[in-house]
Amino acid sequence: MKIFRSLTLAAITLLSHQVLANVDPLPSWNDTQTKKSIIEYVQQTTSPDSKQFIPVSERIATFDNDGTLWAEKPAYFQLYYAIDQVKAQASQHPEWKNTEPFASVLKGDMEGVKKSGVKGILALVNATHSGMNSEEFDASVKNWLKTARHPDTQRPFTQMVYQPMIELLHYLQDNQFKTYIVSAGGVDFMRAWAPEVYGIPKEQIFGSSMKTEYKVIDGKPQIMRLPEISVLNDQAQKPATIQTYIGIRPVIAGGNSDGDLEMLQWTKASSYPSLSLLVHHTDAEREWAYDKESAVGHLEKALPLAKQEKWTVIDMKNDWNQIFPKQ
Amino acid sequence: MKIFRSLTLAAITLLSHQVLANVDPLPSWNDTQTKKSIIEYVQQTTSPDSKQFIPVSERIATFDNDGTLWAEKPAYFQLYYAIDQVKAQASQHPEWKNTEPFASVLKGDMEGVKKSGVKGILALVNATHSGMNSEEFDASVKNWLKTARHPDTQRPFTQMVYQPMIELLHYLQDNQFKTYIVSAGGVDFMRAWAPEVYGIPKEQIFGSSMKTEYKVIDGKPQIMRLPEISVLNDQAQKPATIQTYIGIRPVIAGGNSDGDLEMLQWTKASSYPSLSLLVHHTDAEREWAYDKESAVGHLEKALPLAKQEKWTVIDMKNDWNQIFPKQ
Repeated sequence: MKIFRSLTLAAITLLSHQVLANVDPLPSWNDTQTKKSIIEYVQQTTSPDSKQFIPVSERIATFDNDGTLWAEKPAYFQLYYAIDQVKAQASQHPEWKNTEPFASVLKGDMEGVKKSGVKGILALVNATHSGMNSEEFDASVKNWLKTARHPDTQRPFTQMVYQPMIELLHYLQDNQFKTYIVSAGGVDFMRAWAPEVYGIPKEQIFGSSMKTEYKVIDGKPQIMRLPEISVLNDQAQKPATIQTYIGIRPVIAGGNSDGDLEMLQWTKASSYPSLSLLVHHTDAEREWAYDKESAVGHLEKALPLAKQEKWTVIDMKNDWNQIFPKQ
Repeated sequence: MKIFRSLTLAAITLLSHQVLANVDPLPSWNDTQTKKSIIEYVQQTTSPDSKQFIPVSERIATFDNDGTLWAEKPAYFQLYYAIDQVKAQASQHPEWKNTEPFASVLKGDMEGVKKSGVKGILALVNATHSGMNSEEFDASVKNWLKTARHPDTQRPFTQMVYQPMIELLHYLQDNQFKTYIVSAGGVDFMRAWAPEVYGIPKEQIFGSSMKTEYKVIDGKPQIMRLPEISVLNDQAQKPATIQTYIGIRPVIAGGNSDGDLEMLQWTKASSYPSLSLLVHHTDAEREWAYDKESAVGHLEKALPLAKQEKWTVIDMKNDWNQIFPKQ
């Protein structure tokens, strides 16, 4: 009986896949060369008869998060979380009034905050989230997401993800590519929401991390977060992190800024056919248009290199017919 | 046609599982309380109707390697690799004659080498394996394993693994536990052979690591190994590594020495039912008998804690009817 039921389920699953095979896996992508390149790459590298075939164990795909999978304007979203925590804890920290970037936060001076860059943002996060254990931090981020809204669109931040990239992640997952996030954002911040939003499990999400301390408190072993950055996962640290955490060079990488340059370049030089995707923010109307003039998602060196090394540049305005998920 | 063939395959697979369900998953384990506890734990935590049920995404099992999955006597096996490299490269390093632990290596004084401990071993590895990229190191370890033999048994080192633990890993994998190695040994050393031997993919193997440098050499991006330890993955660093790399507290952990104490303790305190396994080397005849007197695999604090916190102690002599795989 049990076997029969399992077989029926198996049949349904197989039939669904047959039907799905004829459905466009990337409906939010226009029929441009970009989309064609991606689909052609996936078809060739997953067909056992193809010379381009890549074994499943080597199908590693690593993606940046901010500006690649979700928006990062007007400022990295993790910053809004940090700001809300600074405001909530300000009364216990009178010294913050005279210390940057805390002073700018408390004055509501976003330009001052942004000037502090990725390091400043991580400093804010570290300072406001140390002195708690890993489970407490996770709960705090989840709780904040329930009510936090994007300052311009008023959407929940988890609705500021790029629909075409969600489709791409699922398309790759369906084709047995193991999808990872390799971001400069805080690893524990992302793990609180990204598994549900992207279908990427916690253990495939890597980012900047803080020093921690293992402690037994009241008989309960826990990992306490210390107010010090351990690894800033940006630029050349990205391939280093991939080598240490995964140990396999990716065949697909996606990014959008100079912080992703080394990861995209290292991936492109794989001994397997590879795909380096650079998201170019070109749509001032539906999203934001920026590259080398922007502090957030600064893109200057990677764009000419993309042309030189034949990466696939995603032109948001022309390649995507939809940016954010329908609400 | 394709669907029909797939269904037939699915039927065969399902039938095999049905048949296998009646086969002892741990034949190299004696029918002691230890084996019963393990099987009972797995059955209860994987039955959807059980109060002890653990969702698949939380089924994380982390194992130490040296002394837990393979032997570590008379010295950590990675040491023999390092020794062979030191000997091969000695003519290029006249200074090694007067520097420990190199001098002991060159004199063939194993006691002197052992005194340098885990840090000394990693220092040897770092020194002899820096200045090459990650792919070259991987190839070097694979090449060495082809001819290297254990000094006492003359077996290939990959045949010095514990058959009962291999069975346990496979049993857990079959029950959708995600098995990891979290060792103080070098991560890249283990990744060269452990995936094949244990059925654990590279990206689920973590260990001590060296600093690296991303470099484009002759137009080829690569990750160069630097002669400096980055992380010594032992003691309290083990739970910290698990939190950073996986982000989920394990429900099963296995170890054999005080270096595993924190990982086993942290796991035991999971909010899910958990299993902390401590391998006790009690079999002087078939393997080695040692605990608190031994520098390698030093076990002193963890043994009384195991009793106090109700970990499951594996008594090699009584619990295992076979130690190493049949040749």
